[in-house]
Amino acid sequence: MKYVIGVDLGGTNIVCGLMDRDLKLLRKAKRPTEARRGAADVLARIAATIDELLQQENAGRADLAAVGVGNPGFIDPVRGVSLFSANLKWENVPVAETLSGLIGGVPVFVDNDVRMYVYGEAVRGAGRGFDHVMGITLGTGIAAAMVNRGRLYYGGGFLAGEIGHIPLPGENALCGCGMSGCLETIASATGIARIAKEKLAQGEPSVLDEWFPGEKRGDITASDVSRAYDAGDKLARDVMDYVGKSLARGLAAAITLWSPDVVVIGGGAANAGERLLRPLREALEPIVLPMYWNRLAIRLAEMNDDAGVVGSAAFALANVADRDRT
Amino acid sequence: MKYVIGVDLGGTNIVCGLMDRDLKLLRKAKRPTEARRGAADVLARIAATIDELLQQENAGRADLAAVGVGNPGFIDPVRGVSLFSANLKWENVPVAETLSGLIGGVPVFVDNDVRMYVYGEAVRGAGRGFDHVMGITLGTGIAAAMVNRGRLYYGGGFLAGEIGHIPLPGENALCGCGMSGCLETIASATGIARIAKEKLAQGEPSVLDEWFPGEKRGDITASDVSRAYDAGDKLARDVMDYVGKSLARGLAAAITLWSPDVVVIGGGAANAGERLLRPLREALEPIVLPMYWNRLAIRLAEMNDDAGVVGSAAFALANVADRDRT
Repeated sequence: MKYVIGVDLGGTNIVCGLMDRDLKLLRKAKRPTEARRGAADVLARIAATIDELLQQENAGRADLAAVGVGNPGFIDPVRGVSLFSANLKWENVPVAETLSGLIGGVPVFVDNDVRMYVYGEAVRGAGRGFDHVMGITLGTGIAAAMVNRGRLYYGGGFLAGEIGHIPLPGENALCGCGMSGCLETIASATGIARIAKEKLAQGEPSVLDEWFPGEKRGDITASDVSRAYDAGDKLARDVMDYVGKSLARGLAAAITLWSPDVVVIGGGAANAGERLLRPLREALEPIVLPMYWNRLAIRLAEMNDDAGVVGSAAFALANVADRDRT
Repeated sequence: MKYVIGVDLGGTNIVCGLMDRDLKLLRKAKRPTEARRGAADVLARIAATIDELLQQENAGRADLAAVGVGNPGFIDPVRGVSLFSANLKWENVPVAETLSGLIGGVPVFVDNDVRMYVYGEAVRGAGRGFDHVMGITLGTGIAAAMVNRGRLYYGGGFLAGEIGHIPLPGENALCGCGMSGCLETIASATGIARIAKEKLAQGEPSVLDEWFPGEKRGDITASDVSRAYDAGDKLARDVMDYVGKSLARGLAAAITLWSPDVVVIGGGAANAGERLLRPLREALEPIVLPMYWNRLAIRLAEMNDDAGVVGSAAFALANVADRDRT
């Protein structure tokens, strides 16, 4: 059993990666998710892609130690069930059992996609070498996970880590969750774009007004704000300062409660890099106890799109090892 | 080995409890800590108290399975070392090794006093029957700990849980830690008394002004605020509302990041009971995702002074079982 496969199951695409037991990525395949066709269809497509990858390596299912799946939404990783996924419109889908049945009984392990991303960064990315790794993804929404010596932290109902829904006093943007002022209304790719547009609407001058005149203003994304920042734009800088400061509020709580050795920051908004990390660090230092701050590293994620597949594969291998031990 | 002993080592007193293996408390003894005499002296006094308790049971050290110690400050529970305790003025005291040597090699396990208190409430108090127990102590300061299926959460450097030092935006009272606006400047016994006094100083009318005229105002404690509350005092009610609301801010973050099944609230300020829990619940519900809120219990601690000794003993037994397993 020389191989392991990680699956990053997204709302748009499925990415499957074939790795050796050292998690060296040998082959990748990308297929459309086409979630509207239903769970059975999606899982059959994943099974077919797994077989294709094995075939390309002149290998078979007997060579496969395990498969790991990163699934968006709420997952029961012990039973391998996708409890609820808004993206896929899935409810109580027995992913591990079904997929394992389709690939001749190879063990399959499933967890939430953000946890698998953070797990990947923890074992092979920006968190490697640290015992206690917190990861946070700043995308459309934001979420976090904590890995202690190779073990994910779950809490009750496997629900821990929804840092995006810590409310910030004084904020009042309506959040997708129904509450308002949640951290993810500010410190996400969506939040960066929204705040920039609000400042423009208030008449603040910016190069973004030139780049996105009139009705085009709606097209502004977080990466445009980064571009404007690089052009020396004050509005863009103010946005990054504000977002960094808000993110610091959420991270201060997480650092205090979880005590990570390193915080790995990933997801689309992390492309802002130092534009965001500088104000984040400046705002964070005075509001985190020195005993945490002095031992803390803050790093940008390193693995980009591969964190999910590598993390899922690593998670599957860790679970196989656990099972063999008991 | 029919017995186990838990030690609650405080700045003022040492409380030792002798229990059977089911953690039934059979005998307790209380001695002054007299920390100024130094660590060797304090540990010798603990050893002597342990021997006394055994003797009273007509038992000896050979009947003792283990000793657990709840030690204030920063502890390395793996090595059993008290790294730094401001209360005791200890630095790098090898508590487990030293104490074990004084009682004939009986295994000794040490952890932070708040963790041992929460562990006690988790296994024998308000948290029993729940898999994921968060405990918070509202005393002079405040701190929290998380127990997942009988395992304490530690994080890097064993430092997780200093919830008292999550900063609240808009607050600016100077905290003992050197930062300002920390949660414990508000949601602690000290905080309750301080806020009441500030309101009095601003001329707000209150029965507390009658009870503590002139220079006596400085003597007001959190329990006086509770008494005033029960007398229908508006100022006292405002204080509890404000403190409950602030505590909700910190708990919202902790619930989101740790996902407990139950939050157990203990420490001196928890004596305020429903006076504090009512505004806490009201403020908490709208700022915590329903998926957490709907599965969450909030309970007052049940064991009072015994949580520390029982928790320490339970912790010691769990560690002995772990050691025997590997």
